Amino acid sequence: MSFLSTVGASLKEHDADAALISFLPDIRWACGFTGSNGLLFVRRAAEAAGLEAHFVTDGRYTVQAQEEVTEATVHVPGYQLFPYLVKEGFFDGIERLLFQADHVSVAQRDTWAGQTADVRWIGAQEILTRAVAQKTAQEIEHIRAAQLITEEVFSFLLQHIQPGVTEREVAAQIVYQHINRGADKLSFDPIVAAGPRGALPHARPTDRPIASGELVVIDMGCFLNGYASDMTRTVAVGEPGKEARNVYATVRRAQEAAIEVARAGISSDALDAVARDVIEEAGYGDFFSHGLGHGLGLQVHEWPRLSYHVSYPLPADAAVTIEPGIYLPERFGVRIEDIVVLRDSSCVNLTTAPKNLIVID
Amino acid sequence: MSFLSTVGASLKEHDADAALISFLPDIRWACGFTGSNGLLFVRRAAEAAGLEAHFVTDGRYTVQAQEEVTEATVHVPGYQLFPYLVKEGFFDGIERLLFQADHVSVAQRDTWAGQTADVRWIGAQEILTRAVAQKTAQEIEHIRAAQLITEEVFSFLLQHIQPGVTEREVAAQIVYQHINRGADKLSFDPIVAAGPRGALPHARPTDRPIASGELVVIDMGCFLNGYASDMTRTVAVGEPGKEARNVYATVRRAQEAAIEVARAGISSDALDAVARDVIEEAGYGDFFSHGLGHGLGLQVHEWPRLSYHVSYPLPADAAVTIEPGIYLPERFGVRIEDIVVLRDSSCVNLTTAPKNLIVID
Repeated sequence: MSFLSTVGASLKEHDADAALISFLPDIRWACGFTGSNGLLFVRRAAEAAGLEAHFVTDGRYTVQAQEEVTEATVHVPGYQLFPYLVKEGFFDGIERLLFQADHVSVAQRDTWAGQTADVRWIGAQEILTRAVAQKTAQEIEHIRAAQLITEEVFSFLLQHIQPGVTEREVAAQIVYQHINRGADKLSFDPIVAAGPRGALPHARPTDRPIASGELVVIDMGCFLNGYASDMTRTVAVGEPGKEARNVYATVRRAQEAAIEVARAGISSDALDAVARDVIEEAGYGDFFSHGLGHGLGLQVHEWPRLSYHVSYPLPADAAVTIEPGIYLPERFGVRIEDIVVLRDSSCVNLTTAPKNLIVID
Repeated sequence: MSFLSTVGASLKEHDADAALISFLPDIRWACGFTGSNGLLFVRRAAEAAGLEAHFVTDGRYTVQAQEEVTEATVHVPGYQLFPYLVKEGFFDGIERLLFQADHVSVAQRDTWAGQTADVRWIGAQEILTRAVAQKTAQEIEHIRAAQLITEEVFSFLLQHIQPGVTEREVAAQIVYQHINRGADKLSFDPIVAAGPRGALPHARPTDRPIASGELVVIDMGCFLNGYASDMTRTVAVGEPGKEARNVYATVRRAQEAAIEVARAGISSDALDAVARDVIEEAGYGDFFSHGLGHGLGLQVHEWPRLSYHVSYPLPADAAVTIEPGIYLPERFGVRIEDIVVLRDSSCVNLTTAPKNLIVID
């Protein structure tokens, strides 16, 4: 569904005359603007049954907005954006205005509402969330391109990790190699967690040298053309031993079982359960301490969640991560994460890095 | 002023019984917690005239919260944080609850308020802002330590920048060198803007090779122990020519003039004007297109702003940047930025990197 028809459906649902979209990732998705300041105002078109969109930004983005913005008329006032909309009469005749209650602070709403005395401000959540989740073919190519950089970096790391290298040195290489290969930025601070540090799902890299026989959890991703990649691989530096191999095989089986059944329409908790059952049957059920995955796109974490906490059906064409893990406190951890796109009867895996246990000698 | 007495003053001002602090940088400042999920609840102590603080976080942070948190009782419920506060009776008898209206979304406030039927939610802005701005000696040492890494990276760059190197390669080195030297992360995406790109104050690094005779604006910083560094230097790669030298000298004079008079009590716009006057007198007044600087600490951009837009007196013991610039469209730009700490009669400069025009041959 297009941006305008999605907003139109929300206007109808809330019996509103106009909508103010202020959350920047949503603005980017809706009209293409990539800068850091802007407001998107949607109202019924003056002379037709349809809707019209107006985008307002500041003077830093005069040229950029003209180049980037589609589906909206661009305005670049010489002063603040919201007062411009007021002064130019955009709120005249508006009785009920929809705004993004999940992205606007109470103070911001009060400031804005104070300038539009006759307008009733109607807060709505997730106005564009479901539409944003459904990725176009081009968006999927953007995610794939970002993911390709991450996989190149993974190949590089396999040549450079060895006993004695610190987690921090590996993390520094991860950022350097991503940016030098063309990434706009990292999509989150990379996780490099060796040995017992691997048992912390969100460990920060330390100055701890990686020792022979340890597993190393590497979770990393970047933004390219605005879209995120995200991948976790767990590698062994030297022979990790029998239980580590068993845990690795369990996580891999769980991850592949979930990918096998992942598709549009399956409920979030049911998909989570497919992976969780494998881990529970292997006796590690207490050690998979997070949900199965998350949507990603212009944000590295988006709706939908893949989790035992939520039971909605997963949407078609969403890009989501599948990332089960087992974390044995003070011993080691294993996580394996791919990005898949949900289709009607199956999913497409965007991640091509190998999933066998790689032992770096 | 301590955290509790600051909140106490706000409670008194708003005639409130308790306060909910939810903005993570403020929570970190108030009680030391560095994790990503928590709520800090302050109420009158049961048996004394004073206040008591309760900190709630989730099971991922059981050990960390016990180690880090001071001045608050730590609670780690097995379920969601806010419902725990409700269930444990923290809102019983509370008539007016202060919350951070500038950091809580309308949807979040509505969700919370829906669980506390008898409580009136009173939104206040900048509850801790002024207290956070006044840095202790230890906080200043943290900023200085982060800044030291940034200056080491600058020295490294001077050895590695040469004609033909791309902006992107320099940016990749900036992140690698910071993290490898111990930084937790970068405090913002580094700016490396050569030649005409330097005329864009917030240019993103491109694949453009740096040419001989060009100025290069380098703006970078990191977080260490939670505190930010931030420094801009402009260097020449080969002889830049007479006008570039003149512009550089003008920006340097403007920056040094502002530092000369920077102190607690001077108004923000008056300090901005000291630098702006130098640039205007040199004939470049139209090309200094942003404010003079900003506070920094646990966030890289904090209150106070240093700008012609605001006229409040600057607070004692704040760490602020002083960063005038001149940007000649499609030609080149120059910016020089230091961090200073405002004292009663002068300021202390935390930045020690040289400010003469460095020409890399």
